[in-house]
Amino acid sequence: MRKEEDFSEWFSTAIEKAELRDKRYPVKGMDVWLPYGWAIMKRIDQGWREEFDGTGHKEVSFPLLIPETEFQKEADHVKGFEEDVYWVTQGGKNPLDVRLVLRPTSETAMYPMFALWIRSHADLPLKTYQIVSTFRYETKMTRTFLRVREIHFFESHTAHATFEDAEQQIQEDLQINERLMRRFCLPYLVSKRPEWDKFPGAFYSLGADTLLPSGRTLQLATFHQYRDNFSKVYEVKYEAPDGTHKYVHQTTDGMSERIVGAIIAVHGDEKGLVLPPEVAPIQVVIVPILEKGRQEEIGRAARELYAALQPQLRVHIDERDLRPGEKFYHWEAKGVPLRVELGPKDLEKQSVVVVQRTTGEKKSLAILALAARLRSMLELIQVEMFARAEKVLKENTFTILRLEDARDGINRMGWCGRKECGIAVTEKTGMNVLGTPYYKESASGKCAVCGEAAIDVLYAAKAY
Amino acid sequence: MRKEEDFSEWFSTAIEKAELRDKRYPVKGMDVWLPYGWAIMKRIDQGWREEFDGTGHKEVSFPLLIPETEFQKEADHVKGFEEDVYWVTQGGKNPLDVRLVLRPTSETAMYPMFALWIRSHADLPLKTYQIVSTFRYETKMTRTFLRVREIHFFESHTAHATFEDAEQQIQEDLQINERLMRRFCLPYLVSKRPEWDKFPGAFYSLGADTLLPSGRTLQLATFHQYRDNFSKVYEVKYEAPDGTHKYVHQTTDGMSERIVGAIIAVHGDEKGLVLPPEVAPIQVVIVPILEKGRQEEIGRAARELYAALQPQLRVHIDERDLRPGEKFYHWEAKGVPLRVELGPKDLEKQSVVVVQRTTGEKKSLAILALAARLRSMLELIQVEMFARAEKVLKENTFTILRLEDARDGINRMGWCGRKECGIAVTEKTGMNVLGTPYYKESASGKCAVCGEAAIDVLYAAKAY
Repeated sequence: MRKEEDFSEWFSTAIEKAELRDKRYPVKGMDVWLPYGWAIMKRIDQGWREEFDGTGHKEVSFPLLIPETEFQKEADHVKGFEEDVYWVTQGGKNPLDVRLVLRPTSETAMYPMFALWIRSHADLPLKTYQIVSTFRYETKMTRTFLRVREIHFFESHTAHATFEDAEQQIQEDLQINERLMRRFCLPYLVSKRPEWDKFPGAFYSLGADTLLPSGRTLQLATFHQYRDNFSKVYEVKYEAPDGTHKYVHQTTDGMSERIVGAIIAVHGDEKGLVLPPEVAPIQVVIVPILEKGRQEEIGRAARELYAALQPQLRVHIDERDLRPGEKFYHWEAKGVPLRVELGPKDLEKQSVVVVQRTTGEKKSLAILALAARLRSMLELIQVEMFARAEKVLKENTFTILRLEDARDGINRMGWCGRKECGIAVTEKTGMNVLGTPYYKESASGKCAVCGEAAIDVLYAAKAY
Repeated sequence: MRKEEDFSEWFSTAIEKAELRDKRYPVKGMDVWLPYGWAIMKRIDQGWREEFDGTGHKEVSFPLLIPETEFQKEADHVKGFEEDVYWVTQGGKNPLDVRLVLRPTSETAMYPMFALWIRSHADLPLKTYQIVSTFRYETKMTRTFLRVREIHFFESHTAHATFEDAEQQIQEDLQINERLMRRFCLPYLVSKRPEWDKFPGAFYSLGADTLLPSGRTLQLATFHQYRDNFSKVYEVKYEAPDGTHKYVHQTTDGMSERIVGAIIAVHGDEKGLVLPPEVAPIQVVIVPILEKGRQEEIGRAARELYAALQPQLRVHIDERDLRPGEKFYHWEAKGVPLRVELGPKDLEKQSVVVVQRTTGEKKSLAILALAARLRSMLELIQVEMFARAEKVLKENTFTILRLEDARDGINRMGWCGRKECGIAVTEKTGMNVLGTPYYKESASGKCAVCGEAAIDVLYAAKAY
């Protein structure tokens, strides 16, 4: 099945064939993570940890349950979430005195504690993150990885002395994001979300969106500048060097299991997943091609090869009693970047056949120094996969002059800056307004909606 | 403060000084994991992963929420848990059609899926595990790490063709447990829990208990043989080679954040934590001893040393602007196994002073080949810490002839095998019956309760 023809069906089938999740769990929108899907997610978790540890963030872990009393303090925030939170109302056989919310995100869990932790300017910046499940009582149709009720979630939360320091943090987040999305081979567009669609409680919100083959965009990451909106509510203050007490300025950076969904959608093909080498739990699979009478010899050579590669690569050897063709099919569906075939003829030449998942290309390589060759192939694949996806993103981002020309993909248009025209984009095209370009673009010409002079650019697309 | 004098107070203070958890979170019994506490927990998680991955278990991750309909299928299990589960009854502003339980443990979430996954004998054994939060609506007094409402939890779940295969799994679990507890430097006693205190739904339960300085035991791990008790309820069947359909036999192995609590309690001292090198997030801390006029030179040498050690050890350099004494105090409270001091005199001799956390012993070691020396010191500390704790456990396990002689520690006594006498132990001494020894011990003499002939041995202790 080609993903361009029926993306939805292709996407579900690819997940099923690769054995990533099981969606038959008896709560809709809560899928079981199967071992291979979880292994991919853990690779992504590790990417998050490396980048955020490396920039001085400290990993914490907050409780899941938030008392209603804390949850309801920030008015916009509550309003934004009250329709889609799960409520714990009973413990054992007794109703609880204070109802508890399953975290939809952790501002209201963390900031009462930040108020206790932060005393003086010397405690700032405070840079924390956690990787947890969040919960949304989703009433729309759910879809594995893209719209779910239990979400595997990354969230960094920082506090700073000044607005400018918080702005600086957003810059660091964007740099981290660039490095992460290169690892994940996901190109993206950063937009400043429109005022009417920012995160509940934020001063402003940025989103990084990628484009899926369905022509719809998917939000990969969000960056929120909270200014002192939350600190005023939760009394998060510090003593400045001059002895005065000031509210901190806060930011967050959020990502989720959607990244797995994006990788599948952007890179997969009719055979199934195609994983970036950085993300692949198995980078190289060895398939011995056994010939009657020589099974033992080839099996031994394959195991020796495995032992030689194993310290340098994430490698697996498939010794199951199946035909080679079945094994090829199996590992292709799982998106393993490189397959190494070792048969009688290869062994005689002291070489192997290496097959590249992205292109299907085969080449014969000497067993001697194979690990180094495979490593450089993987590095090249990593770069090529990003570049190819970036090309698709660019080709499907087009400037339109009139709203009537809006089509699948990312529509770039002039905007007069008025909310009415922004809202009209959604009303007339059914598309979401992604926002204005974060990296400023020249806005010449007219507003695509009202025809008056454009003062900014607006991006719009159908979004998940 | 000495832990033997007021264990409770010492334990709380040690956790606070080492900055492991913050218990001021506004839900009782749900403590925030601070970065250092979480780093220790992640080391333990990694130990679990290495041991269970290495024995062919696959890591999965199941949803948190379990529908009431599934939860209530196994009668004994429900009865054991219904008093202490949290109920989600509302989504957004609407009551849910089917109420959802926050997992107290995952049998009832997993086994409906096992019924879908297992078709034939070729699917067996199925060996899975997950590391998740579990929830108990605890009504007794809570205590950090030891009795909490959100529990960081490890649980393996396996399914087998026969009862004997499941028994074999319990043997493997006990071997894994032995290796894990050596890593964590926690000696333990394995008991078969009495029939009246086994896990709800189990055929039998084993517990591994350690002894804390308070004289009370703490359960570190449990191993349950379920036989086909759950598979009959959740219809987990397989087709045998002869074409008949049979119920699988199941086991579980469970551990939790209590292991962190046990490490603190068993090994800590008046200065705070003492961490086993395998568990320590920081194994070696470098403290430069700066002397006026030579700060730069010493600072540079310390950073060079850090760079040299870093690939081989988990090392940290403390360059904060504090007096050395304050730094010593700080890292001692955090239980870092080795401190390396580098001052002007050391530098002249091209040596450092190494201070061992367990003994306070100091020695001067050459900078040349220091990493190898430190590594062998850490290996020795690891062995010594286990041995010392094991000695304490043995010294505090005593055989008593009459119930009146029961005292703090682990009481070993003859037992006639009757439930009434077992129950009487608890009623008369307030102690918990840990059970009968899993590794059979000769039972001579009389029942410590009724005085009739003993047919088995019973262990009893005050337990957390």
